[in-house]
Amino acid sequence: MRSRADAAPAYLWVPDLEPGIMGLTAEQSHYVARVCRARPGDLVTITDGRGGIARAHLLSIDKEVRLEVGPVERVAPDRQAWILCGAPEAGRADWLVEKLGEFGVAVFQPVQCARGRWSRADARLERWRRLAVAALRQSRGRFLLDVRPPVSLDEALTGLPSSLGRDLLDPEGLPAAAAGQSGTRVAAVGPASGFDEGERTTLAAAGFGAIRLAESRLRTETAAMAWASWWAAGGSGSSVVAHADRHGRPTS
Amino acid sequence: MRSRADAAPAYLWVPDLEPGIMGLTAEQSHYVARVCRARPGDLVTITDGRGGIARAHLLSIDKEVRLEVGPVERVAPDRQAWILCGAPEAGRADWLVEKLGEFGVAVFQPVQCARGRWSRADARLERWRRLAVAALRQSRGRFLLDVRPPVSLDEALTGLPSSLGRDLLDPEGLPAAAAGQSGTRVAAVGPASGFDEGERTTLAAAGFGAIRLAESRLRTETAAMAWASWWAAGGSGSSVVAHADRHGRPTS
Repeated sequence: MRSRADAAPAYLWVPDLEPGIMGLTAEQSHYVARVCRARPGDLVTITDGRGGIARAHLLSIDKEVRLEVGPVERVAPDRQAWILCGAPEAGRADWLVEKLGEFGVAVFQPVQCARGRWSRADARLERWRRLAVAALRQSRGRFLLDVRPPVSLDEALTGLPSSLGRDLLDPEGLPAAAAGQSGTRVAAVGPASGFDEGERTTLAAAGFGAIRLAESRLRTETAAMAWASWWAAGGSGSSVVAHADRHGRPTS
Repeated sequence: MRSRADAAPAYLWVPDLEPGIMGLTAEQSHYVARVCRARPGDLVTITDGRGGIARAHLLSIDKEVRLEVGPVERVAPDRQAWILCGAPEAGRADWLVEKLGEFGVAVFQPVQCARGRWSRADARLERWRRLAVAALRQSRGRFLLDVRPPVSLDEALTGLPSSLGRDLLDPEGLPAAAAGQSGTRVAAVGPASGFDEGERTTLAAAGFGAIRLAESRLRTETAAMAWASWWAAGGSGSSVVAHADRHGRPTS
């Protein structure tokens, strides 16, 4: 059992964040009081997942945890990552969502493809959104991953801001080192059996350039995660969230 | 159900690979005949996981699959990645091993740390080795991930070749973009609660330089995987294994 000193400082997601006194939900109260072992007087950090962040003083721990929230500091994202993703093999989407959340990806857009369909997506959407919140908390980020319901490729492309740099993950593509890594980008990742020729033509026409991120063949979820990692490593650092501890936690 | 045309061409790991006639094990026979739906006359690719690769003709599918193996072409690795890894939270090591295998990492060395112990490692070692073989097959690689039993940090450092570039994954480190990405490297990744001060001192004395791979806080397994992905993206391409299909499988 870890000591209170080892427990991570509490970090919360509260979508309607405002300065003042507030009570936490049962789930949030459990997290603050039991997982983080916070006590009255402790400082808690809260984000709204849309760039807002505030410090709060823990007032009391009874049935619910009550906090006094300070001023909300707000930043706009200096860059974003979007992922249009075909269905991976069964059981592999949960951790993909978690990892995309940890890397600070903005939008996860599942795409229905000729060679791979997202099934039971309605039931899974709720779980994925919970995983995104957990990843936000874990990574102490400011921007919650937006997990969207599956749509067709055409629909996904119609919804894209025109300003996004566009990457198609493809073993025959250019080495990623030769491609632009900066700014706001979107990646298209095929399902487990790959995009078909029609989808590849559609993506090329929409400005997606083929890049590869490794010399080996990667699974759908590995390729998506590798791209998110590659994108995250290209950040300028302007939206760094202060690290709550300096004891070598395995982050990077 | 996918058609035979959609099934991936068979790719096998056979540690004692030699030219000539050979029979496959029951598990390999199932994979070739049922998963890949190969038929007599089809070509199968086989690696020994140590840089050797051969083409084989499928001769027959009865109780066991029989093959005629051609000449073995052998390459030495032009670079390697090693990972010394503290224990992640429960249940997160399996997919880490799979992903490291997909990225072509050479050595996965679990390390017992002051703030995190690998438990039940003996029982898990067998599963991790099966996952490494599956990842080799999936990624069509030539080098099998060497999954080692947990050791102390001192023991792990003693066993390191002196030629390896050494990275400590650390949120306070230099941006990875500023660090060398080429050649053979080893990463040290702390357990879920991080390396303690003594371990950090030991690593610094052993030449490990602190780098960070993202602006956000990453879990143990995410940091290890991000580093493997970063390393994989820095390859020169000299050990590329020919891709068996050009139909946009989601690799990169």
